[in-house]
Amino acid sequence: MKRHLISAADLTRDDALLVLDTAEELAHIAERPIKKLPTLRGRTVVNLFFEDSTRTRISFEAAAKRLSADVINFSAKGSSVSKGETLKDTALTLQAMGADAVVIRHGASGAPHTLANSGWLRGSVVNAGDGTHEHPTQALLDAFTMRRRLNDGKGDLEGRRITIVGDVLHSRVARSNVLLLATLGAEVTLVAPPTLLPIGVETWPCQVSYDIDSTLAKSDAVMMLRVQRERMNASYFPTEREYSRRYGLDEKRMAALPEHAIVMHPGPMNRGMEIAANVADSPRSTIVEQVTNGVSVRMAVLYLLLGGSEPAVTTTATEENAK
Amino acid sequence: MKRHLISAADLTRDDALLVLDTAEELAHIAERPIKKLPTLRGRTVVNLFFEDSTRTRISFEAAAKRLSADVINFSAKGSSVSKGETLKDTALTLQAMGADAVVIRHGASGAPHTLANSGWLRGSVVNAGDGTHEHPTQALLDAFTMRRRLNDGKGDLEGRRITIVGDVLHSRVARSNVLLLATLGAEVTLVAPPTLLPIGVETWPCQVSYDIDSTLAKSDAVMMLRVQRERMNASYFPTEREYSRRYGLDEKRMAALPEHAIVMHPGPMNRGMEIAANVADSPRSTIVEQVTNGVSVRMAVLYLLLGGSEPAVTTTATEENAK
Amino acid sequence: MKRHLISAADLTRDDALLVLDTAEELAHIAERPIKKLPTLRGRTVVNLFFEDSTRTRISFEAAAKRLSADVINFSAKGSSVSKGETLKDTALTLQAMGADAVVIRHGASGAPHTLANSGWLRGSVVNAGDGTHEHPTQALLDAFTMRRRLNDGKGDLEGRRITIVGDVLHSRVARSNVLLLATLGAEVTLVAPPTLLPIGVETWPCQVSYDIDSTLAKSDAVMMLRVQRERMNASYFPTEREYSRRYGLDEKRMAALPEHAIVMHPGPMNRGMEIAANVADSPRSTIVEQVTNGVSVRMAVLYLLLGGSEPAVTTTATEENAK
Repeated sequence: MKRHLISAADLTRDDALLVLDTAEELAHIAERPIKKLPTLRGRTVVNLFFEDSTRTRISFEAAAKRLSADVINFSAKGSSVSKGETLKDTALTLQAMGADAVVIRHGASGAPHTLANSGWLRGSVVNAGDGTHEHPTQALLDAFTMRRRLNDGKGDLEGRRITIVGDVLHSRVARSNVLLLATLGAEVTLVAPPTLLPIGVETWPCQVSYDIDSTLAKSDAVMMLRVQRERMNASYFPTEREYSRRYGLDEKRMAALPEHAIVMHPGPMNRGMEIAANVADSPRSTIVEQVTNGVSVRMAVLYLLLGGSEPAVTTTATEENAK
Repeated sequence: MKRHLISAADLTRDDALLVLDTAEELAHIAERPIKKLPTLRGRTVVNLFFEDSTRTRISFEAAAKRLSADVINFSAKGSSVSKGETLKDTALTLQAMGADAVVIRHGASGAPHTLANSGWLRGSVVNAGDGTHEHPTQALLDAFTMRRRLNDGKGDLEGRRITIVGDVLHSRVARSNVLLLATLGAEVTLVAPPTLLPIGVETWPCQVSYDIDSTLAKSDAVMMLRVQRERMNASYFPTEREYSRRYGLDEKRMAALPEHAIVMHPGPMNRGMEIAANVADSPRSTIVEQVTNGVSVRMAVLYLLLGGSEPAVTTTATEENAK
Repeated sequence: MKRHLISAADLTRDDALLVLDTAEELAHIAERPIKKLPTLRGRTVVNLFFEDSTRTRISFEAAAKRLSADVINFSAKGSSVSKGETLKDTALTLQAMGADAVVIRHGASGAPHTLANSGWLRGSVVNAGDGTHEHPTQALLDAFTMRRRLNDGKGDLEGRRITIVGDVLHSRVARSNVLLLATLGAEVTLVAPPTLLPIGVETWPCQVSYDIDSTLAKSDAVMMLRVQRERMNASYFPTEREYSRRYGLDEKRMAALPEHAIVMHPGPMNRGMEIAANVADSPRSTIVEQVTNGVSVRMAVLYLLLGGSEPAVTTTATEENAK
């Protein structure tokens, strides 16, 4: 595995399976009386967030703390960054303070790549979402969730048919999912109005459709993307009612799915907009599991990038629980 | 004891005494060289604050850390909550991330109750102040303080006479105190101008008076409520000078108290407004002790809600200090 | 050593050398597999920041966590402090919650002194920057950096010639450096336009010059002060271009330094303004080392103020790493 996780495309099939298998192993920690491993004790994980994203930040924070790492939250708002400090100097500062991993969220697509490839940091960089570009740990937790629900937590997703619906144009979740799912052998179909598809989507390893209803019957999983309220008034966006009617997942559409199929959403949801409330709360919905799995997958990523040499769980875990 | 602590009314007399006795035991940790117990290692306490309240947040944070829990601070400002996420989805997210306790502060009365009774969380909910409704750990720390000062840290408050003065209408502190003090057998008198008393106060288990001076001589404790500056210009509020003159506690009024009586305030104070500076700093004032006791009481609450099975202090504490 | 660290003038030569020697010892922790000592386990360090300063806050946070202390971040913005609570009541609250050290950053010169000399706190106060007054841990990390680069990490700075360039008038960094460097025997020259020198500078233990070029050839270290962008439009400030031309450190000026001389900056830098980008990144620049050394020096300060009795590293460290 590479030293950084910037794009879902950084992961070979073997890398991705290693993350998923490690996450599967680490998920069991949550069931122990002491939900904590000493694996990353003495390591420092910095959450460098240039955008607010409480969910993602606390998921990484919980993951790092469960591995006994020290976590330092660096919200770039109101910091020297906003006084004009460059990303370079911020990076050099974090490196100098001994950051072993920097988890970065940035509004600009490419910022994590710049950070990782600059040589400014000796530690690992994990992309926690950059602009409309990528969000690879979201793709990993989604794949983990599919594998658990559809494949009993084992192997890849060869031949599984995944439908991703919504504003693909602005979605780092969609892009990272398409890349990772292709690596894992799944067949992805994107469903969106033409104005919400990115230029060049025809080169992506997936199908494209404008009609959700024609795809549902043959989907193993349907993933609804979040509609960002600030975009709803843009000229390229359908009206709210039109969007909900044509692309929203309601009970009737859910009924068209095969019996085993699951319903996914990266959260936070707009209930009643891209997904009906009773669909979100149905037993087919994996939305809450996705959050739980997010912690396991991020533990696995931090462990593999930082821990490396020792086994993730086994004896040390036993010792910790025996203490 | 119930799984959640939402209202002071949730506590039976035995529950309340158990919290106070446990807090008394845990208070001694602060005197050890290593002020830390391993009791809640591996547990996660989330501070979910929809309103700023640094004092309350850091009191819970200190309490949780002293019990070795991991603490995650979730300030709802600028988070997905402000992007329209429902309380339900926030709760499901925290549950999914493995929160063992959610300490919630919310501007809306009843939000913690909704959270606790929803089934969204498997962990415990602790109300850290909701609107003008309740603040039960404040009532517990106040009772703990009275018991220490008036009863040598033992038993209940049977027959003790407590006077609470100020803006009862908007005070969650007053409401929770009245309920808990009644449970513990104390006799409470509320003193406030009629416009600052809630409708239905006649059904509360306490007396009401408009005249502070007639109550002081027979009080074992007088608790001054904070005047909220943003309310001072409201039509129902006396002028600042009038309020201070009629309801403020100055040295002359303090002299009217029995010799053993104590002066309390939940903080932060408006010195010179509801309480004179030299009263706040007098030996009768328990204001600083209340803060210290707040950490002990919150340790007890978290311990009893989350730890349950093991003794709070005893051997594990010894081990921890021996390490 | 005194109980508090408010001014660089609080430190005798022996105190300063003790901090530097301890920091030298603690710096090696960063090279261990587990970069953590149990020295301050169970102690609570509060970062009380009335001004945003992410760099300084996370440096203290990293230092405290590396010594296993619990850290509570108290940003005074939006807290009860902004609702009119006095510094006294904030201090009494932190004391009551069991703060063993309060690291304070405040916009008002003298606030840390008030806090330390008030008797409100039993713990230690560390000044993390107050107004235009002092920033003693910055001076310590600068001295540590000079000692490492110029003196092989040993002894004092007797006879070393240090040039400090820029807006001395508003610089707590300059003031603390002048005081500490004088204590350590160095010869300091301040270089600034007359409008950016404080009244009374002639009583400081240093030389003053208006001409950077006449000082460079005889400097062992040149320290460039940050220009604060909000001051650049003030009447006392030269134009940006004029400032950069007359006081900026570019490659040509760097070439005038003796071969062994180092270039320092407290960060964050305005690249191209007070320091050219290629000077900042040259091998003579210690800017990144200063950040690293900041963590070691702050560990030493916290250790010496709080830990006192036990050796900083030795056996306990070994135990911790053996675990």
